[in-house]
Amino acid sequence: MKKVLVLHGVNLNMFGRRNARHYGTCTLAEIDRALVELGAALGVHVETFQTNQEGDLVERIHAALDDGTDAIVINAGAWTHYSYALRDALEILSIPVVEVHMSHIEAREPFRQQSVLAPVVSGCISGFGLQSYLLGLRAAVSLLARDETAP
Amino acid sequence: MKKVLVLHGVNLNMFGRRNARHYGTCTLAEIDRALVELGAALGVHVETFQTNQEGDLVERIHAALDDGTDAIVINAGAWTHYSYALRDALEILSIPVVEVHMSHIEAREPFRQQSVLAPVVSGCISGFGLQSYLLGLRAAVSLLARDETAP
Amino acid sequence: MKKVLVLHGVNLNMFGRRNARHYGTCTLAEIDRALVELGAALGVHVETFQTNQEGDLVERIHAALDDGTDAIVINAGAWTHYSYALRDALEILSIPVVEVHMSHIEAREPFRQQSVLAPVVSGCISGFGLQSYLLGLRAAVSLLARDETAP
Amino acid sequence: MKKVLVLHGVNLNMFGRRNARHYGTCTLAEIDRALVELGAALGVHVETFQTNQEGDLVERIHAALDDGTDAIVINAGAWTHYSYALRDALEILSIPVVEVHMSHIEAREPFRQQSVLAPVVSGCISGFGLQSYLLGLRAAVSLLARDETAP
Amino acid sequence: MKKVLVLHGVNLNMFGRRNARHYGTCTLAEIDRALVELGAALGVHVETFQTNQEGDLVERIHAALDDGTDAIVINAGAWTHYSYALRDALEILSIPVVEVHMSHIEAREPFRQQSVLAPVVSGCISGFGLQSYLLGLRAAVSLLARDETAP
Amino acid sequence: MKKVLVLHGVNLNMFGRRNARHYGTCTLAEIDRALVELGAALGVHVETFQTNQEGDLVERIHAALDDGTDAIVINAGAWTHYSYALRDALEILSIPVVEVHMSHIEAREPFRQQSVLAPVVSGCISGFGLQSYLLGLRAAVSLLARDETAP
Amino acid sequence: MKKVLVLHGVNLNMFGRRNARHYGTCTLAEIDRALVELGAALGVHVETFQTNQEGDLVERIHAALDDGTDAIVINAGAWTHYSYALRDALEILSIPVVEVHMSHIEAREPFRQQSVLAPVVSGCISGFGLQSYLLGLRAAVSLLARDETAP
Amino acid sequence: MKKVLVLHGVNLNMFGRRNARHYGTCTLAEIDRALVELGAALGVHVETFQTNQEGDLVERIHAALDDGTDAIVINAGAWTHYSYALRDALEILSIPVVEVHMSHIEAREPFRQQSVLAPVVSGCISGFGLQSYLLGLRAAVSLLARDETAP
Amino acid sequence: MKKVLVLHGVNLNMFGRRNARHYGTCTLAEIDRALVELGAALGVHVETFQTNQEGDLVERIHAALDDGTDAIVINAGAWTHYSYALRDALEILSIPVVEVHMSHIEAREPFRQQSVLAPVVSGCISGFGLQSYLLGLRAAVSLLARDETAP
Amino acid sequence: MKKVLVLHGVNLNMFGRRNARHYGTCTLAEIDRALVELGAALGVHVETFQTNQEGDLVERIHAALDDGTDAIVINAGAWTHYSYALRDALEILSIPVVEVHMSHIEAREPFRQQSVLAPVVSGCISGFGLQSYLLGLRAAVSLLARDETAP
Amino acid sequence: MKKVLVLHGVNLNMFGRRNARHYGTCTLAEIDRALVELGAALGVHVETFQTNQEGDLVERIHAALDDGTDAIVINAGAWTHYSYALRDALEILSIPVVEVHMSHIEAREPFRQQSVLAPVVSGCISGFGLQSYLLGLRAAVSLLARDETAP
Amino acid sequence: MKKVLVLHGVNLNMFGRRNARHYGTCTLAEIDRALVELGAALGVHVETFQTNQEGDLVERIHAALDDGTDAIVINAGAWTHYSYALRDALEILSIPVVEVHMSHIEAREPFRQQSVLAPVVSGCISGFGLQSYLLGLRAAVSLLARDETAP
Repeated sequence: MKKVLVLHGVNLNMFGRRNARHYGTCTLAEIDRALVELGAALGVHVETFQTNQEGDLVERIHAALDDGTDAIVINAGAWTHYSYALRDALEILSIPVVEVHMSHIEAREPFRQQSVLAPVVSGCISGFGLQSYLLGLRAAVSLLARDETAP
Repeated sequence: MKKVLVLHGVNLNMFGRRNARHYGTCTLAEIDRALVELGAALGVHVETFQTNQEGDLVERIHAALDDGTDAIVINAGAWTHYSYALRDALEILSIPVVEVHMSHIEAREPFRQQSVLAPVVSGCISGFGLQSYLLGLRAAVSLLARDETAP
Repeated sequence: MKKVLVLHGVNLNMFGRRNARHYGTCTLAEIDRALVELGAALGVHVETFQTNQEGDLVERIHAALDDGTDAIVINAGAWTHYSYALRDALEILSIPVVEVHMSHIEAREPFRQQSVLAPVVSGCISGFGLQSYLLGLRAAVSLLARDETAP
Repeated sequence: MKKVLVLHGVNLNMFGRRNARHYGTCTLAEIDRALVELGAALGVHVETFQTNQEGDLVERIHAALDDGTDAIVINAGAWTHYSYALRDALEILSIPVVEVHMSHIEAREPFRQQSVLAPVVSGCISGFGLQSYLLGLRAAVSLLARDETAP
Repeated sequence: MKKVLVLHGVNLNMFGRRNARHYGTCTLAEIDRALVELGAALGVHVETFQTNQEGDLVERIHAALDDGTDAIVINAGAWTHYSYALRDALEILSIPVVEVHMSHIEAREPFRQQSVLAPVVSGCISGFGLQSYLLGLRAAVSLLARDETAP
Repeated sequence: MKKVLVLHGVNLNMFGRRNARHYGTCTLAEIDRALVELGAALGVHVETFQTNQEGDLVERIHAALDDGTDAIVINAGAWTHYSYALRDALEILSIPVVEVHMSHIEAREPFRQQSVLAPVVSGCISGFGLQSYLLGLRAAVSLLARDETAP
Repeated sequence: MKKVLVLHGVNLNMFGRRNARHYGTCTLAEIDRALVELGAALGVHVETFQTNQEGDLVERIHAALDDGTDAIVINAGAWTHYSYALRDALEILSIPVVEVHMSHIEAREPFRQQSVLAPVVSGCISGFGLQSYLLGLRAAVSLLARDETAP
Repeated sequence: MKKVLVLHGVNLNMFGRRNARHYGTCTLAEIDRALVELGAALGVHVETFQTNQEGDLVERIHAALDDGTDAIVINAGAWTHYSYALRDALEILSIPVVEVHMSHIEAREPFRQQSVLAPVVSGCISGFGLQSYLLGLRAAVSLLARDETAP
Repeated sequence: MKKVLVLHGVNLNMFGRRNARHYGTCTLAEIDRALVELGAALGVHVETFQTNQEGDLVERIHAALDDGTDAIVINAGAWTHYSYALRDALEILSIPVVEVHMSHIEAREPFRQQSVLAPVVSGCISGFGLQSYLLGLRAAVSLLARDETAP
Repeated sequence: MKKVLVLHGVNLNMFGRRNARHYGTCTLAEIDRALVELGAALGVHVETFQTNQEGDLVERIHAALDDGTDAIVINAGAWTHYSYALRDALEILSIPVVEVHMSHIEAREPFRQQSVLAPVVSGCISGFGLQSYLLGLRAAVSLLARDETAP
Repeated sequence: MKKVLVLHGVNLNMFGRRNARHYGTCTLAEIDRALVELGAALGVHVETFQTNQEGDLVERIHAALDDGTDAIVINAGAWTHYSYALRDALEILSIPVVEVHMSHIEAREPFRQQSVLAPVVSGCISGFGLQSYLLGLRAAVSLLARDETAP
Repeated sequence: MKKVLVLHGVNLNMFGRRNARHYGTCTLAEIDRALVELGAALGVHVETFQTNQEGDLVERIHAALDDGTDAIVINAGAWTHYSYALRDALEILSIPVVEVHMSHIEAREPFRQQSVLAPVVSGCISGFGLQSYLLGLRAAVSLLARDETAP
């Protein structure tokens, strides 16, 4: 069974208490539960991780090199816009990485319209709230399937 | 039964003959077929439309105001980056609009990194080839479901 | 009797269905009727034309070279902000051209604050809804009168 | 009878002695006379004021809060491009304000292409010489009529 | 009794050992003591917190949601200029937040002239050394008083 | 007894009639009264001055060189953002100057986010309405005290 | 016999009626005739096509994939500066493409100094009026010859 | 006898009390005296004028149209960098205008490196303290001589 | 017989040893030989000159004023992008100047996309290797013919 | 014996597993060993430290104030490009600091071309892989020697 | 007797053959003669030097360190705008340097509006043709006099 | 024995007479001597070359193609920041090139912070005075060693 690692960055433990217009009303626990359930339905194991320490997220990504992770879904929160450290960490990996955002960051403040992670991810899904995560998991699974069927 | 309109912009009739690294090897007909099938599975009617004339796409969007369209999935091709005419056309609508791209436009040439449609769509999915469309259709359906269950 | 050609660009057939704060509630037919009536009062023949195809508008402008048009009033809609093709078409003419906008484009989004047509028109009127058109017609008529009385 | 205040900014007392290509050959007195006459024809009282002192214009605008002024037509001259003081003065008012310019400022030097007043006026008319003022007065009168007939 | 939380960001534990021209000669302990004393005089409880870990500061702010904090005074140090993570953390709160700086950051290097926190704070005090903190505490207290007396 | 001069720039005589969200509801007379009272409590003489003429403010600052002024508190209004003339006038002085703003200018329109006075003032307080002035007076007094106790 | 397709973009049907300083006095028909004649002399078949519809030009380029076209000479007119749709269409081809301009666009207005087509063409010739086309045809023929003689 | 008008802008009455490194130690009276004396030696009448009111300087320039002024030497002080009003006033004149600065403005802060007056003056002399004025007077006299000897 | 001077700038003596993708495999001697031959065929005398000293090229251009040169073909190499000295030298001439480049500079690094020579040349040919020179010679000859036949 | 502290920032524990083109194939342990050996040869004690937590690196730098560190060699990894916190931490020190990078950052992506640490370090060595560290250590030692021999 | 060295940069040997509107009709020999004569009148020895080789001008400046030159007047021609080599050469000197230009460079093309020499010269005179040189010589002499009379 | 060529650019013959803070007190002869000595110790032959003529440096680099040079150490002085000619010359070589600077150019004026040579060199060492050269020589030698041991 393939393993998909879902990474949540800074402030994302506060889902449910943030601006509902941008972030909906789900809590992080609810999001994680929905991901695990969908993962089961899609035949993959889903592991989730949240931290507010940039360094911890960097090290969790490093660990993914050796712990059997097959794909990553990541919402880096505000780090998306300035953490070149995360970018470099992700660049080390050779597995599919899917970037997700609850709100449609391209339609918000100028600083949110740029993702420093973009050049090192496979693709991005933004603007659909909880669904961004679920579609991101589906995207990751389809990327795994594609890799598998490649000659 | 809800109706989802899938719009393909300029040059997209050439899928299958364009740079495979960015656009994969599916033809437009294959994409449309996959969308109709997934639509059936999700319980929505999918209608598709492609044109290389900006004005025809504008008018197809106008028509959506009155023809029972419930949501739109749109890949505007190169128009994404400069057609404020499309932006204004979409802004007239009050139904969900999902932007999709085969390649991950945020990771390509600078001119492709900006979507002038961003402020008038619900969200965006880019980088997953054919799957961008299929995930886009799922996103549209989930937005319809959300609207339905709102008080 | 002098002839004034009023040109409406992309999406302007949707007046009455667009955001009322920016565009008021008149339909295009009502605008055209008001223009014809004011034209009659001012002693000029008013002809109107709307299209969502950039090329059709370009060719309508070309035709104005030879069909007895004495002045143009133009609201190019979103093309105002990027269609150098329209700019070049207008530059061929040697008759007065008046640019009009329903909303005050200088006070809206950054992309709307620049008109690529500005260097090739006589002047501009923006922000007065239907009155922008009527004042634009008056401006065109006064430019014709001025030219006439010049030695 | 409604009162429309016409404000002329810095250097505008020199009309008739400035570059005729941009500013025509009318003097300020002739412009004011034409405005008063048109005002009479339109059924409004026109009062005019010119100054080369930024502070005097600011205070004339302040006075308009309490002296029965119903609308303003303003040509701020070069202040248009940098006087945030005028902008803030106008922002205090809640009556219609129409910006006018003799020359088409959008088609001149880069510094003239931006109006810092734009966000606080109803609309703008530029490029028609004396007619810019007369059309501006008509615009102001039509804005007053619109406000009157609003529910 | 109201509680005001004073937050000190990165490097601020080094006050007293940094460039005296910009940061004066007080130590952090002296600053904290002065704040507690002034708090007592003003009738509020002052709690202080310093950290060099961005994540710890984010989590301290999260905790303020539930621990009875009534207002925050924050000097984020160098994070002021790039930590969108802090910005997002502060945005979750609905209590008054006062930004303070020992040196006058608007008059130093270009990178220090922008605060990414500005859009989510009530106001800012910079340039007065230790007094910036004390005035910041007074500002926070006055904001609390104002909220209290609002209907 | 030390003398603190409080300077109010353009449009500030209109406090109480401007946008209450940004500027509160106090009148200038009330602000001046509060400053004089606080000054008395702090043991300094407070003199206030308002003008809408840039030149008058420049000359009032010049006069401060010779009239026993010990410190200045200044809210230059919109001039803050473009009057290099004021900047140069303030630069001539060698006494403490405190910049204050009612609204938090760093969080408003881009043109308001830059103060051309910043390099020539000791510090700045913005965003606290009437309290900005009162805290500014306290800051000025503390700067005087500091200078006094310096060797 | 090789076939060279010469494409003329928007407004270029007006050659002969445009500004003679930039565009000379030839008509499009005369240009086409000269091209066909030179083609005959060089041993290639020349086919020409002009349109004012961006979509028609896109589709004519698509058709070139399958109709035996060996090389393209293109003057896209004003589209040169913003039509990423044309750029994407040309990018699909694998034959030589030569960009030509009557006027020297690098020496005109800033917007004309950038060609969005540049990255997808072999080279560019600008500034020689009718000769730009004729030299462009020679360039295309020499590129064909080079390809032929390559191993 | 020709008349040269020397204009001093804002803050320049403070020469002798400003930063000596940039502005030297002469007073304005001393500068004016030196100019009058040099004028006498060169055979021209020198008149001087200083003001801190932008409007007064504008009107003094207007007056020069009719009072027999043959040339102008102007140091506009800080207005040099933003007063488009002065620029427009000077543009009305058709006599020689020489811009002077005590300090070398091109080598100071960025805002001082641009003169908005540059396009409407004959030339500029900066960096030589009192000598900038004296050389400026010589330049004006030589321009008058040149005009005189022109056919 | 007309004389065409072909100028080669810095590093161009290294053709044949530079990156073949951009510059082909011809040596400078071969290019010059091909130019002389084509010149003979076209009935003009071709003289060539290469230097790596900016000053020598400037002076060769000066000499062209008086040595019977009728037209210039120039490839300035890297100087194209920064040598305003060359630009000024060319501006002195009143004969046709044709700019050529082996590679398509508009499609390479940003610094190569701007030619500081553009405003002082008749036109430009880039991207065709050796053919850029030969087409450039043809362009020069056609410009000479045009000048000759002008009234 | 002098002590040189070598600091490795974020992601640098992954040397040996990152892109070999930029970072070579050495592991961090091998780098540290080589540094210790070279230190011994040069007569200095080398201590090394790596962390992925920005705050830990800040505090390690603070500690260097009091632990006998004589010089620092630092490779801050991605933090080089945005961590003003590190910059401020280094600025507190008065010992030599040498910045090193394995890859030549000036020749990579734009974001890597700027080091926010540059203004607070003595110098920088980049592009030589493991040798960048070894040369950096030599540089540090030579700076210590220089300081020692200074009067 | 003091010695003033007058340096003429690239293309300036062509005075008299360049655009008369910008550069007048004097030849360089006439300029030099006028300078020598004025020098004699002012009691200084004037030596002049022109070159089109940047390196020769750099070395002539180096030589001025040791050959008794007391001041420099320099018109660097087009090098003014990009030759940081000249800037560094001049920076080595500790004598007065006066920059001069025939045309008013601040009022011409954007690239001419910046002088890279500005930070290393005493002042600048531009726009007065031959008089720019003569005034420049006077400025240099007055700077020498000032230095002499300083304590 | 390998040969390393050390190139010194414009103004560098003046070392010892330039600003000591940036460039130290060594003369160029002393630097060259130190390089030759270190070369001997490292087992390489060191040849040095200085010129103030850009063209001479370009040609010295060309010569390095054929004269047995194995590596280059270059300090291009001010040319570093604008000489694309040098950049293109270096690009022709396929041997290691090490860029060095005495001062830390990244920490000086903005124009010095960019090296146009960066994309064509192996690495850069700046800020260590004479040591920059010596470390640069070591870097070159280590690059040669690496190339030698590569398979």
